[in-house]
Amino acid sequence: MNRKELFDQICHKRSFLCVGLDTDVKKIPPHLLNEDDPIFAFNKAIIDATAEYCVAYKPNMAFYESVGSFGALSFEKTVDYICENYPELFIIADAKRGDIGNTSDMYARSFFEHLKVDALTVSPYMGEDSISPFLSYAGKWTVLLALTSNRGSQDFQMMRDADGEYLFERVIRISQTWDNADHLMYVVGATQASMLKDIRRIVPDAFLLVPGVGAQGGSLEDVAEYGMNDHCGLLVNASRSIIYADNTESFASKAAGEAAAMQRSMEDALRRKGLI
Amino acid sequence: MNRKELFDQICHKRSFLCVGLDTDVKKIPPHLLNEDDPIFAFNKAIIDATAEYCVAYKPNMAFYESVGSFGALSFEKTVDYICENYPELFIIADAKRGDIGNTSDMYARSFFEHLKVDALTVSPYMGEDSISPFLSYAGKWTVLLALTSNRGSQDFQMMRDADGEYLFERVIRISQTWDNADHLMYVVGATQASMLKDIRRIVPDAFLLVPGVGAQGGSLEDVAEYGMNDHCGLLVNASRSIIYADNTESFASKAAGEAAAMQRSMEDALRRKGLI
Repeated sequence: MNRKELFDQICHKRSFLCVGLDTDVKKIPPHLLNEDDPIFAFNKAIIDATAEYCVAYKPNMAFYESVGSFGALSFEKTVDYICENYPELFIIADAKRGDIGNTSDMYARSFFEHLKVDALTVSPYMGEDSISPFLSYAGKWTVLLALTSNRGSQDFQMMRDADGEYLFERVIRISQTWDNADHLMYVVGATQASMLKDIRRIVPDAFLLVPGVGAQGGSLEDVAEYGMNDHCGLLVNASRSIIYADNTESFASKAAGEAAAMQRSMEDALRRKGLI
Repeated sequence: MNRKELFDQICHKRSFLCVGLDTDVKKIPPHLLNEDDPIFAFNKAIIDATAEYCVAYKPNMAFYESVGSFGALSFEKTVDYICENYPELFIIADAKRGDIGNTSDMYARSFFEHLKVDALTVSPYMGEDSISPFLSYAGKWTVLLALTSNRGSQDFQMMRDADGEYLFERVIRISQTWDNADHLMYVVGATQASMLKDIRRIVPDAFLLVPGVGAQGGSLEDVAEYGMNDHCGLLVNASRSIIYADNTESFASKAAGEAAAMQRSMEDALRRKGLI
């Protein structure tokens, strides 16, 4: 999916919502535990209930890996289900990978050829040759961690060099010089929304994947105010506030309600910016 | 395994070799492709051939994930095989994970409870709360990326602040203030062995996991000269130069020969430092 197709979807759905499928078998409604594959059963219900309100899904690999090879299978089934039933939805594997070149090649093959996701989150720590194997896949997106929404983002991402540039700013600036940089997106946490203004000076055009709205306390209004550009340029992720909105047999309809509420706020934001 | 037990193994084996099980199904000897699980068959033969010359194995997750849920199973079988047959061997899952707290919890559960490895490599980019879930596991080790052996290590790890401190030095210094910091090891590439002297000033006692000897061109002598402390403090990894030493039915015995040669050089280095 290219940038224009993604923006078209955003306008069509009047939403830039990404639903995080951080599916923890210990948190899903108890009645699903009788299913052959409880994780997939949960995801399928959440996807069917929320697909009309969002433009992307972001399964977080950690939650699938934590139950071993069985979880890897649930992940594959989830991606296949989205591809077959909602091919217009953008799929981001949240894996935060990044390794030396020949290893990143393997990850790229895994996620882009075997699993067929549209995008993968990647850690920048190891530099260009750890990222370029992902960027070399035509039509795929690499989502680089820049400024994350957790407390520990202060430890290293906010380190400043002698000129006052933060590490996360350096990550964005330097990565824009790499081959195929037009297929980079950046993770910028909603809990640090005021930083979005400065980030937009470095990358006016790039899509930003923004976690931290909802359970982590970030404000959607601030994110839209400081981060939105003329093709939206935002994918705002919500995970727990949607998928764990309820723990009974009504979990999917409650999730739909939460997703619909976010969609309405996003529609307002898109209108305020004159994009729809 | 604690620090003393690891050092005892090093003295007993007269080796600080870690064999990297970066098993690529496209590179293993063709006759193994007829096996039910070629990756596990290859690993089993390599492990049986090299166990007497090394103290650790480091399977790199990327190579297993690249073939999907089937690869995850090969990885589990490999870890189980080492645990059952060579329980004295230290197992490092090279996964370079790191995510917000509740997600790192899932990874920690996955690697330390489900898979029962001794150590996991982790990226420091997201800071303390992304690492503490790993450090909180008693008896387990967290191996933090510091200065890697690839070209891209220059991009961000070598960024300097106004006081001249590099990012990788900051990672080591700050992480030493975290709870259970005595269960941290650090990745420091052999291709930058001269940096080991400065690193030993910050962490005189920590174990360093050193990739980059062999295929990547780092020197074992330099690593031992600048990095060894009074309990060795080094695990030197070699992957391709050992496991792909040969591509015929003799692959395992050729791998053993390569591992034995490294063991002899390591025995010399340990003697030079008076540790055995």
